[in-house]
Amino acid sequence: MPDLRRDPVVGRWVIISTERASRPQELQYPPADQAGQTLCPFCPGQERLTPQEILAYRPQGGDFNTPTWSVRVVPNKFPALQIEGELGREGVGLYDRMNGIGAHEVIIETPDHKATLADLPSKQIEYVLWAYRDRMVDLRRDSRFRYLLVFKNHGAAAGATLEHTHSQLIALPIIPTSVMGEINGCRAHFLQKERCIYCDIVRQELEDTDRLVTQNPEFVVITPFAARFPFEMWILPKRHAAYFEESQKIQVELLARILSEALRRMDRILLRPAYNFILHTSPLHEKTGDFYHWHIELIPKLTQVAGFEWGTGFYINPVKPEESATFLRDAAI
Amino acid sequence: MPDLRRDPVVGRWVIISTERASRPQELQYPPADQAGQTLCPFCPGQERLTPQEILAYRPQGGDFNTPTWSVRVVPNKFPALQIEGELGREGVGLYDRMNGIGAHEVIIETPDHKATLADLPSKQIEYVLWAYRDRMVDLRRDSRFRYLLVFKNHGAAAGATLEHTHSQLIALPIIPTSVMGEINGCRAHFLQKERCIYCDIVRQELEDTDRLVTQNPEFVVITPFAARFPFEMWILPKRHAAYFEESQKIQVELLARILSEALRRMDRILLRPAYNFILHTSPLHEKTGDFYHWHIELIPKLTQVAGFEWGTGFYINPVKPEESATFLRDAAI
Repeated sequence: MPDLRRDPVVGRWVIISTERASRPQELQYPPADQAGQTLCPFCPGQERLTPQEILAYRPQGGDFNTPTWSVRVVPNKFPALQIEGELGREGVGLYDRMNGIGAHEVIIETPDHKATLADLPSKQIEYVLWAYRDRMVDLRRDSRFRYLLVFKNHGAAAGATLEHTHSQLIALPIIPTSVMGEINGCRAHFLQKERCIYCDIVRQELEDTDRLVTQNPEFVVITPFAARFPFEMWILPKRHAAYFEESQKIQVELLARILSEALRRMDRILLRPAYNFILHTSPLHEKTGDFYHWHIELIPKLTQVAGFEWGTGFYINPVKPEESATFLRDAAI
Repeated sequence: MPDLRRDPVVGRWVIISTERASRPQELQYPPADQAGQTLCPFCPGQERLTPQEILAYRPQGGDFNTPTWSVRVVPNKFPALQIEGELGREGVGLYDRMNGIGAHEVIIETPDHKATLADLPSKQIEYVLWAYRDRMVDLRRDSRFRYLLVFKNHGAAAGATLEHTHSQLIALPIIPTSVMGEINGCRAHFLQKERCIYCDIVRQELEDTDRLVTQNPEFVVITPFAARFPFEMWILPKRHAAYFEESQKIQVELLARILSEALRRMDRILLRPAYNFILHTSPLHEKTGDFYHWHIELIPKLTQVAGFEWGTGFYINPVKPEESATFLRDAAI
């Protein structure tokens, strides 16, 4: 059973999950454990190589765990958290721990082994977003969970261990520290001004335009004012909304289109880099409707993060966000 | 002039420093700009390749900027911050910025190009620690600065761009977010219990012993209860002390010895990995004497940090800290 442990000083929770590696030699960077693999477990026809599917879209029909799917969600074969069991919260001297209860799922975004998310038609990206939503709506009914985290690692440098394009969803019984930081910042702004701070950001960026990458009727893509990384982008709904999973159909369509566009602009300028994106949505069971605003953070993996950043949460970005935005805006796509 | 910008939601400050790279092509990971270099600017005899030295120890005497030094401190040739100028704090709509004022120095730890810090006699490591201290004592007189950050990147995977062993010191006009997190956690504990939380941690770890790596009369090395990384170690003074730079001579001697031992244990078990360490000391001009406790965080760079960690400040550690401690304790050094 994985362990969830809380740092007593800063309140940060950590998953101690020893299922994946045991000896120090197995930890060498980069991970070598996928190197010899020949059959891709995410390809159609290899469904037996994954755990039983949780969800799949089969527009032409077909049976459970057969190759006719267009998007497929399966449990992670090496989950960081375990779905069955009690939370078992307890103190250990001055420390706090609980059982590593949670869900860890993989969203296989296409049957096509060679395509990246950016290569897919925006209709296919829409299916991927619906799969995020459907899984979130299902998992939020589990009262043990307090946060649903959707993220994507693309490319080995960004932490992907399998090449076939996929995203991940982790359901957590705690709220991650940096989400709490956002919630607290939003709450403080709201208490002072009775406005959502992300709504204020969207308004200012649409006026200033020098950090604006692109927009459509529902979404805006910006390089944030205090970007941590070169070419970091945020995708924000123009209209206030705390929960991604409450998006309307038209919004999902327009999000698929703008996400596709952002990825293609990034690929064009940075020559198909490794990247991560993370969906920041409201925690479950928190009354954040007035002041939190969901968004996606998209981070190309270009710079090496070093001791300075680890130690401080403080970043050095070698490219002005305004310059990143200019490059991205002018990309010929 | 570099720019310091504050994220309006979470309060995180970022340095936008465009001196180092300008075009997207120059940002490819890993950085290639040092690859063709043949002369090491940190080697004795190459003193002309660095900016003028700020401090050097020459036990046998010798002139400024000549090769007789045992430890040498120079300004970083590509500084993230600039030493001259006014802070120029201002608002930009809802955002906050200031000029990127600060110091960025390099501590060259030995004249020997091939040695690592772990290879050095502990007497030499003592000189390195004295250099940290001397520079901190000097820089804290500059009223523009609020934090002095000492850190080390060892190996390319940990962000080092030059092979010759060195540490860095950055003086900042702001307090980094995660230091603020520690300060707030310590203050909350003190308000409740009138004790330093790190003193409580040291006490519990000395009693439990299962996360204890080693100790001497003044210091303890532990793997923290909620370690973010495999084989992460913390070096803590046994006696309460908020400011590293106020250490006594005997403490500097014993710190050099235990740091050397921790590095050699790590090198032995992990086969000389890349690593980072960061000195966490009290911010300047803050009354933290009762509740903050300086320490060193030592992090071997083994696992790839992926989207999950970026997005959440929430880590998955594949090795139990108790198991890491056992390996490190049993290392034959």
